[in-house]
Amino acid sequence: MAVIRRLPKYYRYLSDLSDAGVTRISSKELAMKMGLTASQIRQDLNCFGGFGQQGYGYDVANLYSAIGEILGVDNSYPAVLVGCGNLGKAIALFVQSSQSPFKMIAGFDVASDLVGTSLNSIPILHSSEIGSFCCKNEIKAAFLCLPTESTKLVVAQLYEKGVRYFCNFTHYNINIKYKDAVVENVHITDSLLTLCYSMNAKNCEENEA
Amino acid sequence: MAVIRRLPKYYRYLSDLSDAGVTRISSKELAMKMGLTASQIRQDLNCFGGFGQQGYGYDVANLYSAIGEILGVDNSYPAVLVGCGNLGKAIALFVQSSQSPFKMIAGFDVASDLVGTSLNSIPILHSSEIGSFCCKNEIKAAFLCLPTESTKLVVAQLYEKGVRYFCNFTHYNINIKYKDAVVENVHITDSLLTLCYSMNAKNCEENEA
Repeated sequence: MAVIRRLPKYYRYLSDLSDAGVTRISSKELAMKMGLTASQIRQDLNCFGGFGQQGYGYDVANLYSAIGEILGVDNSYPAVLVGCGNLGKAIALFVQSSQSPFKMIAGFDVASDLVGTSLNSIPILHSSEIGSFCCKNEIKAAFLCLPTESTKLVVAQLYEKGVRYFCNFTHYNINIKYKDAVVENVHITDSLLTLCYSMNAKNCEENEA
Repeated sequence: MAVIRRLPKYYRYLSDLSDAGVTRISSKELAMKMGLTASQIRQDLNCFGGFGQQGYGYDVANLYSAIGEILGVDNSYPAVLVGCGNLGKAIALFVQSSQSPFKMIAGFDVASDLVGTSLNSIPILHSSEIGSFCCKNEIKAAFLCLPTESTKLVVAQLYEKGVRYFCNFTHYNINIKYKDAVVENVHITDSLLTLCYSMNAKNCEENEA
Protein backbone atom coordinates (compact mmCIF):
# COMPACT_ATOMS: atom_id res chain seq x y z
CA MET A 1 0.00 0.00 0.00
CA ALA A 2 2.95 2.35 0.62
CA VAL A 3 4.02 1.91 -3.02
CA ILE A 4 0.49 2.57 -4.20
CA ARG A 5 0.39 5.75 -2.14
CA ARG A 6 3.48 6.92 -4.01
CA LEU A 7 2.01 6.21 -7.46
CA PRO A 8 -0.02 9.44 -7.65
CA LYS A 9 3.20 11.30 -6.81
CA TYR A 10 5.06 9.59 -9.66
CA TYR A 11 2.13 10.37 -11.86
CA ARG A 12 2.28 14.08 -10.95
CA TYR A 13 6.01 14.39 -11.52
CA LEU A 14 5.87 12.53 -14.81
CA SER A 15 3.05 14.78 -15.96
CA ASP A 16 5.23 17.83 -15.23
CA LEU A 17 8.24 16.29 -16.99
CA SER A 18 6.12 15.49 -19.99
CA ASP A 19 4.72 19.05 -20.04
CA ALA A 20 8.29 20.35 -19.89
CA GLY A 21 9.16 18.29 -22.96
CA VAL A 22 11.40 15.77 -21.14
CA THR A 23 11.23 12.43 -22.98
CA ARG A 24 13.45 10.26 -20.80
CA ILE A 25 14.85 10.36 -17.30
CA SER A 26 17.18 8.26 -15.18
CA SER A 27 16.08 6.91 -11.82
CA LYS A 28 18.77 9.16 -10.28
CA GLU A 29 17.37 12.35 -11.81
CA LEU A 30 13.79 11.38 -11.00
CA ALA A 31 14.88 10.59 -7.43
CA MET A 32 16.44 14.03 -7.00
CA LYS A 33 13.29 15.76 -8.21
CA MET A 34 11.02 13.70 -6.02
CA GLY A 35 13.12 13.64 -2.87
CA LEU A 36 13.42 9.83 -2.99
CA THR A 37 16.42 7.57 -3.59
CA ALA A 38 17.15 6.05 -6.99
CA SER A 39 17.00 2.54 -5.55
CA GLN A 40 13.60 3.21 -3.99
CA ILE A 41 12.29 4.32 -7.37
CA ARG A 42 13.66 1.24 -9.12
CA GLN A 43 12.19 -0.95 -6.39
CA ASP A 44 8.77 0.77 -6.54
CA LEU A 45 8.50 0.51 -10.29
CA ASN A 46 9.76 -3.07 -10.32
CA CYS A 47 6.67 -3.94 -8.25
CA PHE A 48 4.66 -3.14 -11.35
CA GLY A 49 6.87 -4.92 -13.84
CA GLY A 50 9.83 -2.67 -14.44
CA PHE A 51 9.52 -0.06 -17.24
CA GLY A 52 13.17 1.09 -17.06
CA GLN A 53 16.13 0.03 -19.17
CA GLN A 54 19.65 -0.08 -17.83
CA GLY A 55 21.69 2.78 -19.27
CA TYR A 56 18.64 4.41 -20.82
CA GLY A 57 16.44 5.20 -17.87
CA TYR A 58 12.72 5.62 -18.16
CA ASP A 59 10.71 6.72 -21.16
CA VAL A 60 8.61 9.51 -19.62
CA ALA A 61 5.56 9.14 -21.87
CA ASN A 62 5.45 5.34 -21.51
CA LEU A 63 5.90 5.40 -17.76
CA TYR A 64 3.31 8.15 -17.39
CA SER A 65 0.69 6.23 -19.33
CA ALA A 66 1.56 2.92 -17.62
CA ILE A 67 1.13 4.44 -14.15
CA GLY A 68 -2.03 6.18 -15.30
CA GLU A 69 -3.37 2.82 -16.37
CA ILE A 70 -2.45 1.17 -13.05
CA LEU A 71 -4.20 3.99 -11.20
CA GLY A 72 -7.15 3.82 -13.55
CA VAL A 73 -7.18 7.56 -14.27
CA ASP A 74 -9.24 7.16 -17.41
CA ASN A 75 -12.20 6.01 -15.40
CA SER A 76 -15.09 8.28 -14.70
CA TYR A 77 -16.70 6.81 -11.63
CA PRO A 78 -20.04 8.38 -10.79
CA ALA A 79 -20.00 9.80 -7.26
CA VAL A 80 -22.26 11.74 -4.95
CA LEU A 81 -21.50 14.74 -2.78
CA VAL A 82 -23.09 14.78 0.66
CA GLY A 83 -23.19 18.26 2.16
CA CYS A 84 -23.38 21.16 -0.29
CA GLY A 85 -22.28 24.03 1.95
CA ASN A 86 -19.10 26.03 1.35
CA LEU A 87 -16.82 23.03 1.85
CA GLY A 88 -18.91 20.80 -0.41
CA LYS A 89 -19.01 23.53 -3.02
CA ALA A 90 -15.23 23.86 -2.83
CA ILE A 91 -14.78 20.10 -3.22
CA ALA A 92 -17.21 19.91 -6.14
CA LEU A 93 -15.26 22.71 -7.83
CA PHE A 94 -12.03 20.91 -7.08
CA VAL A 95 -13.21 17.58 -8.47
CA GLN A 96 -14.30 19.38 -11.63
CA SER A 97 -11.10 21.41 -11.93
CA SER A 98 -8.69 18.51 -11.50
CA GLN A 99 -8.33 15.71 -14.00
CA SER A 100 -10.45 13.63 -11.74
CA PRO A 101 -11.45 10.00 -12.23
CA PHE A 102 -14.71 10.87 -10.48
CA LYS A 103 -17.77 12.53 -11.90
CA MET A 104 -20.04 14.14 -9.36
CA ILE A 105 -23.57 13.35 -10.51
CA ALA A 106 -25.63 14.61 -7.58
CA GLY A 107 -25.33 16.56 -4.36
CA PHE A 108 -27.39 16.01 -1.23
CA ASP A 109 -28.29 18.39 1.54
CA VAL A 110 -31.05 19.05 4.07
CA ALA A 111 -31.08 22.86 3.77
CA SER A 112 -34.30 23.96 2.11
CA ASP A 113 -32.55 26.88 0.37
CA LEU A 114 -30.15 24.45 -1.35
CA VAL A 115 -32.41 21.52 -2.25
CA GLY A 116 -33.75 21.94 -5.78
CA THR A 117 -30.93 24.25 -6.85
CA SER A 118 -27.73 23.13 -8.54
CA LEU A 119 -24.02 23.36 -7.87
CA ASN A 120 -21.99 23.87 -11.06
CA SER A 121 -24.72 22.00 -12.93
CA ILE A 122 -24.85 19.20 -10.34
CA PRO A 123 -28.44 18.88 -9.06
CA ILE A 124 -28.87 19.18 -5.29
CA LEU A 125 -31.40 16.71 -3.91
CA HIS A 126 -32.79 16.23 -0.42
CA SER A 127 -30.72 13.92 1.78
CA SER A 128 -33.76 11.69 2.35
CA GLU A 129 -33.40 10.53 -1.30
CA ILE A 130 -29.79 9.47 -0.90
CA GLY A 131 -30.41 5.74 -0.44
CA SER A 132 -32.74 5.27 -3.39
CA PHE A 133 -30.57 7.47 -5.63
CA CYS A 134 -27.37 5.51 -4.90
CA CYS A 135 -29.15 2.19 -5.35
CA LYS A 136 -30.76 3.20 -8.66
CA ASN A 137 -27.54 4.71 -10.07
CA GLU A 138 -25.25 2.00 -8.70
CA ILE A 139 -23.10 4.57 -6.92
CA LYS A 140 -19.95 3.17 -5.32
CA ALA A 141 -18.23 6.42 -4.23
CA ALA A 142 -19.23 9.33 -2.02
CA PHE A 143 -17.63 12.61 -1.00
CA LEU A 144 -18.57 13.53 2.56
CA CYS A 145 -18.60 17.26 3.32
CA LEU A 146 -21.33 17.37 5.94
CA PRO A 147 -21.13 18.11 9.67
CA THR A 148 -19.42 15.27 11.55
CA GLU A 149 -22.41 14.62 13.81
CA SER A 150 -24.65 13.81 10.82
CA THR A 151 -22.09 11.60 9.13
CA LYS A 152 -22.67 8.38 11.06
CA LEU A 153 -26.26 8.04 9.83
CA VAL A 154 -25.42 9.00 6.25
CA VAL A 155 -22.56 6.49 6.07
CA ALA A 156 -24.89 3.76 7.37
CA GLN A 157 -27.38 4.55 4.59
CA LEU A 158 -24.71 4.73 1.89
CA TYR A 159 -23.04 1.52 3.03
CA GLU A 160 -26.35 -0.34 3.05
CA LYS A 161 -26.90 0.67 -0.58
CA GLY A 162 -23.48 -0.59 -1.67
CA VAL A 163 -21.27 2.51 -1.44
CA ARG A 164 -17.79 1.33 -0.38
CA TYR A 165 -15.46 4.18 -1.39
CA PHE A 166 -15.42 7.35 0.65
CA CYS A 167 -13.52 10.58 0.29
CA ASN A 168 -14.09 11.81 3.81
CA PHE A 169 -13.69 15.46 4.77
CA THR A 170 -15.50 15.00 8.10
CA HIS A 171 -13.96 13.83 11.38
CA TYR A 172 -16.07 10.68 11.52
CA ASN A 173 -13.89 7.57 11.57
CA ILE A 174 -15.65 5.33 9.03
CA ASN A 175 -13.34 2.30 9.28
CA ILE A 176 -14.05 1.66 12.96
CA LYS A 177 -17.46 0.25 12.03
CA TYR A 178 -17.06 -0.51 8.32
CA LYS A 179 -13.84 -2.48 8.03
CA ASP A 180 -14.11 -3.14 4.29
CA ALA A 181 -14.87 0.46 3.31
CA VAL A 182 -12.02 2.13 1.41
CA VAL A 183 -11.58 5.57 2.90
CA GLU A 184 -9.41 8.55 2.06
CA ASN A 185 -9.55 11.01 4.92
CA VAL A 186 -8.68 14.51 3.79
CA HIS A 187 -8.09 17.13 6.45
CA ILE A 188 -7.00 20.35 4.82
CA THR A 189 -7.55 22.14 8.12
CA ASP A 190 -4.78 20.04 9.67
CA SER A 191 -2.36 21.54 7.13
CA LEU A 192 -3.59 25.06 7.89
CA LEU A 193 -3.18 24.48 11.62
CA THR A 194 0.29 22.98 11.24
CA LEU A 195 1.33 26.03 9.22
CA CYS A 196 -0.26 28.27 11.81
CA TYR A 197 1.65 26.50 14.60
CA SER A 198 4.95 27.22 12.84
CA MET A 199 4.09 30.90 12.39
CA ASN A 200 2.97 31.12 15.96
CA ALA A 201 6.08 29.39 17.33
CA LYS A 202 8.26 31.79 15.31
CA ASN A 203 6.39 34.81 16.69
CA CYS A 204 6.78 33.55 20.25
CA GLU A 205 10.52 33.10 19.69
CA GLU A 206 10.84 36.63 18.37
CA ASN A 207 8.84 38.12 21.23
CA GLU A 208 11.01 36.34 23.76
CA ALA A 209 14.24 37.44 22.06
CA MET B 1 7.42 17.52 14.54
CA ALA B 2 5.48 14.21 14.52
CA VAL B 3 3.77 15.28 17.76
CA ILE B 4 2.97 18.68 16.29
CA ARG B 5 1.46 17.00 13.23
CA ARG B 6 -0.89 15.13 15.56
CA LEU B 7 -2.01 18.26 17.43
CA PRO B 8 -4.58 19.31 14.80
CA LYS B 9 -6.03 15.81 15.04
CA TYR B 10 -6.36 16.09 18.83
CA TYR B 11 -7.91 19.48 18.31
CA ARG B 12 -10.50 18.05 15.89
CA TYR B 13 -11.48 15.18 18.16
CA LEU B 14 -11.70 17.40 21.23
CA SER B 15 -13.90 19.81 19.29
CA ASP B 16 -16.27 16.97 18.43
CA LEU B 17 -16.29 15.69 22.03
CA SER B 18 -17.02 19.17 23.28
CA ASP B 19 -19.86 19.56 20.74
CA ALA B 20 -21.26 16.22 21.91
CA GLY B 21 -21.33 17.50 25.50
CA VAL B 22 -18.49 15.30 26.78
CA THR B 23 -16.69 17.11 29.61
CA ARG B 24 -13.95 14.65 30.48
CA ILE B 25 -12.27 11.69 28.86
CA SER B 26 -9.63 9.12 29.78
CA SER B 27 -6.55 8.63 27.63
CA LYS B 28 -7.86 5.12 26.93
CA GLU B 29 -11.22 6.35 25.57
CA LEU B 30 -9.56 9.11 23.57
CA ALA B 31 -7.08 6.57 22.17
CA MET B 32 -9.88 4.29 21.01
CA LYS B 33 -11.63 7.13 19.24
CA MET B 34 -8.47 8.37 17.56
CA GLY B 35 -6.93 5.04 16.66
CA LEU B 36 -3.88 5.69 18.84
CA THR B 37 -2.65 4.00 22.02
CA ALA B 38 -3.32 5.48 25.45
CA SER B 39 0.39 5.66 26.20
CA GLN B 40 1.07 7.54 22.97
CA ILE B 41 -1.55 10.09 23.93
CA ARG B 42 -0.10 10.55 27.41
CA GLN B 43 3.37 10.87 25.92
CA ASP B 44 2.25 13.39 23.27
CA LEU B 45 0.44 15.59 25.75
CA ASN B 46 3.27 15.36 28.27
CA CYS B 47 5.47 17.06 25.66
CA PHE B 48 3.34 20.14 26.21
CA GLY B 49 3.21 19.99 29.98
CA GLY B 50 0.68 17.31 30.86
CA PHE B 51 -2.98 18.42 31.22
CA GLY B 52 -4.22 15.05 32.50
CA GLN B 53 -4.84 13.86 36.05
CA GLN B 54 -4.42 10.28 37.15
CA GLY B 55 -7.82 8.68 37.75
CA TYR B 56 -9.68 11.64 36.30
CA GLY B 57 -8.46 11.81 32.72
CA TYR B 58 -8.55 14.96 30.67
CA ASP B 59 -10.88 17.90 31.03
CA VAL B 60 -12.13 18.24 27.45
CA ALA B 61 -12.70 22.01 27.47
CA ASN B 62 -9.33 22.76 29.09
CA LEU B 63 -7.38 20.47 26.82
CA TYR B 64 -9.18 21.82 23.76
CA SER B 65 -8.36 25.40 24.61
CA ALA B 66 -4.77 24.57 25.62
CA ILE B 67 -4.10 22.81 22.31
CA GLY B 68 -5.82 25.64 20.45
CA GLU B 69 -3.45 28.05 22.17
CA ILE B 70 -0.37 25.96 21.28
CA LEU B 71 -1.52 25.84 17.65
CA GLY B 72 -2.33 29.54 17.71
CA VAL B 73 -5.82 29.09 16.29
CA ASP B 74 -6.98 32.50 17.46
CA ASN B 75 -4.61 34.19 15.07
CA SER B 76 -5.79 35.73 11.87
CA TYR B 77 -2.71 35.82 9.70
CA PRO B 78 -3.21 37.80 6.52
CA ALA B 79 -2.48 35.68 3.47
CA VAL B 80 -2.59 35.92 -0.30
CA LEU B 81 -3.98 33.51 -2.84
CA VAL B 82 -1.98 33.06 -6.03
CA GLY B 83 -4.05 31.61 -8.84
CA CYS B 84 -7.78 32.36 -8.78
CA GLY B 85 -9.07 29.65 -11.12
CA ASN B 86 -11.39 26.86 -10.01
CA LEU B 87 -8.87 25.39 -7.58
CA GLY B 88 -8.00 28.79 -6.08
CA LYS B 89 -11.68 29.60 -5.78
CA ALA B 90 -12.27 26.28 -4.00
CA ILE B 91 -9.42 26.95 -1.60
CA ALA B 92 -10.58 30.50 -0.87
CA LEU B 93 -14.04 29.12 -0.12
CA PHE B 94 -12.49 26.47 2.06
CA VAL B 95 -10.35 28.89 4.06
CA GLN B 96 -13.45 31.00 4.64
CA SER B 97 -15.65 28.04 5.55
CA SER B 98 -13.28 26.48 8.07
CA GLN B 99 -12.34 28.09 11.33
CA SER B 100 -9.15 29.17 9.72
CA PRO B 101 -6.27 31.05 11.34
CA PHE B 102 -5.69 32.69 7.95
CA LYS B 103 -7.51 35.57 6.39
CA MET B 104 -7.23 35.79 2.63
CA ILE B 105 -6.81 39.49 1.88
CA ALA B 106 -6.04 39.41 -1.84
CA GLY B 107 -5.95 37.08 -4.80
CA PHE B 108 -3.57 37.34 -7.75
CA ASP B 109 -3.95 36.13 -11.28
CA VAL B 110 -2.82 36.98 -14.81
CA ALA B 111 -6.15 36.30 -16.56
CA SER B 112 -7.64 39.58 -17.76
CA ASP B 113 -11.20 38.36 -17.13
CA LEU B 114 -10.36 37.79 -13.44
CA VAL B 115 -8.16 40.78 -12.59
CA GLY B 116 -10.28 43.60 -11.18
CA THR B 117 -13.09 41.29 -10.10
CA SER B 118 -13.42 39.73 -6.65
CA LEU B 119 -13.66 36.27 -5.20
CA ASN B 120 -16.03 36.06 -2.23
CA SER B 121 -15.21 39.72 -1.51
CA ILE B 122 -11.44 39.14 -1.89
CA PRO B 123 -10.10 41.54 -4.54
CA ILE B 124 -8.24 39.92 -7.45
CA LEU B 125 -5.16 41.88 -8.49
CA HIS B 126 -2.73 41.35 -11.35
CA SER B 127 0.17 39.04 -10.53
CA SER B 128 2.67 41.77 -11.41
CA GLU B 129 1.61 43.58 -8.21
CA ILE B 130 2.32 40.62 -5.96
CA GLY B 131 5.74 41.74 -4.70
CA SER B 132 4.77 45.28 -3.78
CA PHE B 133 1.50 44.13 -2.21
CA CYS B 134 3.17 41.55 0.03
CA CYS B 135 5.88 43.99 1.04
CA LYS B 136 3.41 46.79 1.87
CA ASN B 137 1.05 44.50 3.80
CA GLU B 138 3.80 42.50 5.50
CA ILE B 139 2.39 39.23 4.18
CA LYS B 140 4.07 36.12 5.55
CA ALA B 141 1.79 33.41 4.13
CA ALA B 142 0.68 32.46 0.63
CA PHE B 143 -1.67 29.86 -0.84
CA LEU B 144 -0.40 28.62 -4.19
CA CYS B 145 -3.08 27.41 -6.60
CA LEU B 146 -1.47 28.31 -9.91
CA PRO B 147 -0.06 26.08 -12.66
CA THR B 148 3.13 24.34 -11.53
CA GLU B 149 5.23 25.81 -14.35
CA SER B 150 4.53 29.39 -13.18
CA THR B 151 5.16 28.62 -9.52
CA LYS B 152 8.95 28.85 -9.49
CA LEU B 153 8.97 32.54 -10.46
CA VAL B 154 6.12 33.44 -8.10
CA VAL B 155 7.80 31.73 -5.14
CA ALA B 156 11.04 33.62 -5.89
CA GLN B 157 9.14 36.94 -5.80
CA LEU B 158 7.23 36.05 -2.65
CA TYR B 159 10.33 34.80 -0.86
CA GLU B 160 12.25 37.96 -1.73
CA LYS B 161 9.50 40.04 -0.12
CA GLY B 162 9.59 38.03 3.10
CA VAL B 163 6.90 35.40 2.57
CA ARG B 164 8.08 32.24 4.38
CA TYR B 165 4.90 30.17 4.87
CA PHE B 166 3.37 28.38 1.93
CA CYS B 167 0.29 26.26 1.57
CA ASN B 168 1.23 24.65 -1.70
CA PHE B 169 -1.34 23.01 -3.97
CA THR B 170 1.05 22.91 -6.95
CA HIS B 171 3.66 20.21 -7.69
CA TYR B 172 6.59 22.62 -7.35
CA ASN B 173 8.97 21.48 -4.62
CA ILE B 174 9.64 24.75 -2.74
CA ASN B 175 12.03 23.39 -0.12
CA ILE B 176 14.65 22.24 -2.63
CA LYS B 177 15.69 25.87 -3.15
CA TYR B 178 14.26 27.60 -0.09
CA LYS B 179 15.38 25.52 2.86
CA ASP B 180 13.93 27.80 5.54
CA ALA B 181 10.49 28.12 3.96
CA VAL B 182 7.76 26.35 5.92
CA VAL B 183 5.66 24.44 3.43
CA GLU B 184 2.48 22.39 3.66
CA ASN B 185 2.02 20.49 0.43
CA VAL B 186 -1.60 19.57 -0.11
CA HIS B 187 -2.38 17.12 -2.87
CA ILE B 188 -6.07 16.30 -2.82
CA THR B 189 -5.70 14.69 -6.23
CA ASP B 190 -3.39 12.07 -4.68
CA SER B 191 -6.28 11.01 -2.45
CA LEU B 192 -8.65 10.86 -5.41
CA LEU B 193 -6.18 8.75 -7.39
CA THR B 194 -5.52 6.40 -4.47
CA LEU B 195 -9.26 5.87 -4.10
CA CYS B 196 -9.53 5.37 -7.85
CA TYR B 197 -6.74 2.77 -7.77
CA SER B 198 -8.66 0.75 -5.17
CA MET B 199 -11.88 0.87 -7.20
CA ASN B 200 -9.99 -0.07 -10.31
CA ALA B 201 -8.15 -2.96 -8.64
CA LYS B 202 -11.46 -4.27 -7.31
CA ASN B 203 -13.04 -4.12 -10.78
CA CYS B 204 -10.09 -5.98 -12.32
CA GLU B 205 -10.40 -8.68 -9.66
CA GLU B 206 -14.11 -9.08 -10.38
CA ASN B 207 -13.56 -9.23 -14.12
CA GLU B 208 -10.93 -11.92 -13.70
CA ALA B 209 -13.10 -13.95 -11.33
